[in-house]
Amino acid sequence: MHGMFQRVLFPTDFSEEAVVAIDRFLSSSEIKIRELIVLHVIDSKLLEAIAEATRRSHGSEAQAREAAFSLLKGEAEEKLKSICERMRQHAEVVKAEVRVGRPSEEIVEAAEEYDVDLILIPSKSTVGIQSFVFGSVSLGVLEMSSKPVLVVKLPE
Amino acid sequence: MHGMFQRVLFPTDFSEEAVVAIDRFLSSSEIKIRELIVLHVIDSKLLEAIAEATRRSHGSEAQAREAAFSLLKGEAEEKLKSICERMRQHAEVVKAEVRVGRPSEEIVEAAEEYDVDLILIPSKSTVGIQSFVFGSVSLGVLEMSSKPVLVVKLPE
Repeated sequence: MHGMFQRVLFPTDFSEEAVVAIDRFLSSSEIKIRELIVLHVIDSKLLEAIAEATRRSHGSEAQAREAAFSLLKGEAEEKLKSICERMRQHAEVVKAEVRVGRPSEEIVEAAEEYDVDLILIPSKSTVGIQSFVFGSVSLGVLEMSSKPVLVVKLPE
Repeated sequence: MHGMFQRVLFPTDFSEEAVVAIDRFLSSSEIKIRELIVLHVIDSKLLEAIAEATRRSHGSEAQAREAAFSLLKGEAEEKLKSICERMRQHAEVVKAEVRVGRPSEEIVEAAEEYDVDLILIPSKSTVGIQSFVFGSVSLGVLEMSSKPVLVVKLPE
């Protein structure tokens, strides 16, 4: 152990490309991490949309929201488990976390709460073409967080 | 030596805050670098503006531009020397480089030419306020480069 980073946050929307890019970057740079937190934020807008769409099959709005939350949370936990497995070679401890809210805000908040030394953000590659490639989540995190952010480009 | 990063690019506009932030980040994360390239890009627009403003004291436009270039290059080399000294603890080899052009483009190009594993970009901190804090140079590099970019926030 080189004792590089104490705590690193990797927010994921479960893009396979992003996991591959982060995995490759961590391998090639030999970055070692004590605690890696793999975070998925369930977008509250998506949650509301599902609750709204499935309201009829449920007794109340609250129940529809509860069911939608269970569904999304269950799916997220399943996917996080597999990502955490793959990240185990880069960190002593890998932790999965699910939050609900506005993704960029939740990521920034989690980074503050855990007082991470680094946030890993995968991003599409544009190779020389300046276009607004940053999703609102990535840009939001880059702008709002006081923590260092490592932007890893996805292969084209 | 942990042999972490083979080649890292640190573009600087000579902001003292930025040097302090990068220095602190490299120290605390114990990142080791084989070759660190400290790059300053003389903005060609600035060069033209100075050449334009001092044209009368020179024989020709070309001479005015040459004089402006000498002036800016000399200043840049002086400042780069002092930054390189301070970065020596983080890298086996520290190299200074001056280029002329559009800063974001020159930075992206240098990153490609040197095939760096990382570009270090300092950025202002906004702490929770989402506003367009990224300068056009930082955003340009973030968007155009295929290389990983580490955004280190400046203390407020």
